[in-house]
Amino acid sequence: MNELGITILDQGTVASPLGFQAAGVSCGLKKSGNEDFALIVSDRDCAAAGTFTSNLFPAAPVVYDRMLIENGADVRIVAVNSGVANACTGTEGLDRARATAAIAAEALGVASEQVLVCSTGRIGVQLPMDKIRDGIRKAVPLLSKEGGHAAAKAIMTTDTQIKETAVSFVVNGRTVTLGGMTKGAGMIAPHMTPAGLHATMLCFLTTDAEIAASDLAGFLAEAVSTSFNRISVDNDMSTNDTCLLLANGASGVAIRRDDGEAAELFRKALREVARDLAKRMVMDGEGASKFVEICVVGAATDAEAEACAKAIADSMLCKTAWFGADPNWGRVLAAAGYSGAAFQPENVSMDYDEQPVVRKGMDAGTPEAVLSELMKKREFTIRLDLGAGGCSCVRWTSDLTYDYVKINADYHT
Amino acid sequence: MNELGITILDQGTVASPLGFQAAGVSCGLKKSGNEDFALIVSDRDCAAAGTFTSNLFPAAPVVYDRMLIENGADVRIVAVNSGVANACTGTEGLDRARATAAIAAEALGVASEQVLVCSTGRIGVQLPMDKIRDGIRKAVPLLSKEGGHAAAKAIMTTDTQIKETAVSFVVNGRTVTLGGMTKGAGMIAPHMTPAGLHATMLCFLTTDAEIAASDLAGFLAEAVSTSFNRISVDNDMSTNDTCLLLANGASGVAIRRDDGEAAELFRKALREVARDLAKRMVMDGEGASKFVEICVVGAATDAEAEACAKAIADSMLCKTAWFGADPNWGRVLAAAGYSGAAFQPENVSMDYDEQPVVRKGMDAGTPEAVLSELMKKREFTIRLDLGAGGCSCVRWTSDLTYDYVKINADYHT
Repeated sequence: MNELGITILDQGTVASPLGFQAAGVSCGLKKSGNEDFALIVSDRDCAAAGTFTSNLFPAAPVVYDRMLIENGADVRIVAVNSGVANACTGTEGLDRARATAAIAAEALGVASEQVLVCSTGRIGVQLPMDKIRDGIRKAVPLLSKEGGHAAAKAIMTTDTQIKETAVSFVVNGRTVTLGGMTKGAGMIAPHMTPAGLHATMLCFLTTDAEIAASDLAGFLAEAVSTSFNRISVDNDMSTNDTCLLLANGASGVAIRRDDGEAAELFRKALREVARDLAKRMVMDGEGASKFVEICVVGAATDAEAEACAKAIADSMLCKTAWFGADPNWGRVLAAAGYSGAAFQPENVSMDYDEQPVVRKGMDAGTPEAVLSELMKKREFTIRLDLGAGGCSCVRWTSDLTYDYVKINADYHT
Repeated sequence: MNELGITILDQGTVASPLGFQAAGVSCGLKKSGNEDFALIVSDRDCAAAGTFTSNLFPAAPVVYDRMLIENGADVRIVAVNSGVANACTGTEGLDRARATAAIAAEALGVASEQVLVCSTGRIGVQLPMDKIRDGIRKAVPLLSKEGGHAAAKAIMTTDTQIKETAVSFVVNGRTVTLGGMTKGAGMIAPHMTPAGLHATMLCFLTTDAEIAASDLAGFLAEAVSTSFNRISVDNDMSTNDTCLLLANGASGVAIRRDDGEAAELFRKALREVARDLAKRMVMDGEGASKFVEICVVGAATDAEAEACAKAIADSMLCKTAWFGADPNWGRVLAAAGYSGAAFQPENVSMDYDEQPVVRKGMDAGTPEAVLSELMKKREFTIRLDLGAGGCSCVRWTSDLTYDYVKINADYHT
C-alpha cells in the first residue's frame, strides 16, 4: 500500500475488479494476424461514464456510445476492435457499429443497448462484419479473469507496449478494485497494419465499486483533466478518442462523490490509474526516445499555465532539440513567449531537473555540457517559472525523432 | 511585363531600386566562415514601415527597431547579422543593438537614429561587438548595386537557397522598382498583423517610390496578410521576426494609398514580391521535400477557413504522410475536424489536384495508387470544401521529413 492508501496489484488488468471478465482474439482485421478484437464483460449491470473526442468527424462508435451513455445505459459489454476505425463511414458506419453491439448482445444474452463499441485503426473503411462476427464468436468462450491481458494486447495498434494496471483500496473493511487498460501512440509493424491510423487513444476503466452514473461522470472528468488531458505526443486529435469507466458494484461498496473518505480514496485511485496509463502512452509515443515533464509554475492563471505547458510540449523545435539532447533553452522560452501566457521576460527562470538554465530571462551560466549530459537521460523535467502569479500546470510529452517520421511516413506503404 | 502590368527583373535584388546599395560579408559570427553580416543603405532618407514578432521575448533589435519606426525615423541604413539572435540578452543586449546602430551610423556619416538593426541566429548569446565592428568595417567599402546578392546570402541561417527578387512598374512614364530579400526556413508559421509577426523570418523590402510612412505601413500590412501570413513550416514563433519596408522616393514617383491606379500597381507589385518570397521560404523550409497548397473553401467565416487551413498545414501527421506520399486523407479530415471550423461531415468533399478524394465526408473511390502517384510530385494542392458557407483561405506548407529532424536535433552541436 502506498502513502495514499492505494495498493497497486501485481499483474492487474481491466478484468481485476470483481464481476469483470475479458478476452482478446484475432479475427483478421490486422494483416499481421495479431489480436484485434477484445471483449470486456461484467456479470451484472454497470453504471457507465465516458469522455470522447471533440473532433467534428467523430467515428461511428463514438457517436453510438455517446448516445447510449447520455441515455443512462446499464452497460454489460464493451466490444473493441483495432485495425479499422469506422470513422468517415457515414450512416453505413453507424449501422455497422449498431450491428456489432447487437451481435455481441445476442451472443451473451443481454440487451443490445447494454453494449458499448469502440474502434481504432484505418479511417474511411467500413467494418468487415464477417470478421467482427468471427471475433465475437471466438472471444465469448475465452472470457475470463485472466483474459484482461489478451484484451489489452488486442486493442494495440502502433503501440509497442501493453498498457494495463489495477489498484485496490479498502473502505470499511471491504476491498474496492479499479482496473484499466489503454492503447495509443506507438507503431511496431507498420508494414503489417492497415493505413490511416491516428494515435487514437482508447482507455477502458473498470471498478467493482457501486457508483451512480452521474457521480461516475464527475469522477471521470476530474481524472481525465489531470491525466490524459495532460499528455502530448503529436498535436493531432483523433476521430476515435474514447475513455470509458464502468462501475458494477460487485464489491458491495457504494461510493458517492460527496462521500468524504471513500470518495477521496476512489478519486486518488482513479487518478493514480489514469496518470499511470497516460504517462505510459507518452513513454510509448510513436518513435519517442525521451519522456519530458513540463512543469510551468508562477503563471497568472490556470489557463495560462496550461497554454504555456502545451505550447512547449507541442513545439516541433523543442521536441527535436530534446531528441538531440540540445539544451537550446531559447526554443523553450520562445514557445512560452508565443503561448499566450502573460509575463515579464526579466522575471522568468527555468531549470532542467536540478540545474539552473535561465535566471531573470537570461542564461543562468550552467555549462552546456552539463545540461546536454542531463538531457541524454530517458526522462527529465523542465521547470519554467513565469514569475507572474501562483498558478501551475504539469504536462508530459515526448521528443520528435527520425522514428516518428518513419512510422508516420512509411505507415501506409 | 505580366498581365498585372508588373515586370519581374532579371537578377533583381534588395538593391535594385534607385538609390539603394547593399553588401554582405563574413565577420566570424558563423563557425562555417560563411557571410554573416549585411548592410542595406539608401543614399537618401527613407520612410519606413515594419512588422515584428509578438513573442513576449522580443529580441533586442526588435525592441529597438519598433521604437525607431514608431517614432517615424528617417531611415538610411539597415544592419543585419546572422549567427547570433541577440534575444534573451537583457538590457546588455539592447545596449549592443544600439551600439551596432551607432557604429554603422558613424561609418556612413548618418545619425544613429537612422539605422535599423536585425539579428537572427542563436538565442541567449550576447553580440560579439568586435566582430560586428569588423563586419561594418568590411561591408562599407563593398556597398554597391551588385551587393544585394551578397547581402541576401549573408542573412541566411538554415536556408539552402538565396531568396531575393525585384519587380518594376511604370507610373506616368516613370519606372518604380521594388526589391526584396528574405531568410527563414524553420520556425515558420507567420501570422502577420501590423502589431506582430509570427515567424523566424527576416524580410527586407525596398522601393524607390515616394510613400509616406503611414501609407507604407498600410501597404505592408495588406501584403503580408496574403503572403507571409499564409505560410507554415513548423508552428514556432520566433523572438526575432522582422519585416521592413523602406521607401526612398528616388524614382521621383509619389504614391498615396488612396491614389487609384498607381496605388493599385504598387499594391500588386508588393503582393507579388511578398508572395514570391513567402513561397520560396516554404519551398526551402527546413528539410522540406514537398510544397503543398492547402485551399479551404466553403467555410462559414474567413476566420474558420484560416483556422482550418492552418490546422492541416501544421499537422505533424499530415506533414509526415505527405513526405511518404501517403494519401491518408483521414488525417486531413481529422485536422479539419479539430480546427474549430464548423461544418457537417456529410457535406465535406476534398480533392488532391484534380482527383476526387472525399465526397459527402467519405471515400470518393479514387484508387490509392493514383493518389499516391500524384503525391510524389514536388508540389500538389489539397482542396477541401467544408460545404458550410462562402469563405475560403489558401495556405502554403511543407512536409515533415527526416531532414527536418536532423537539422533541428543537430543544430546546436
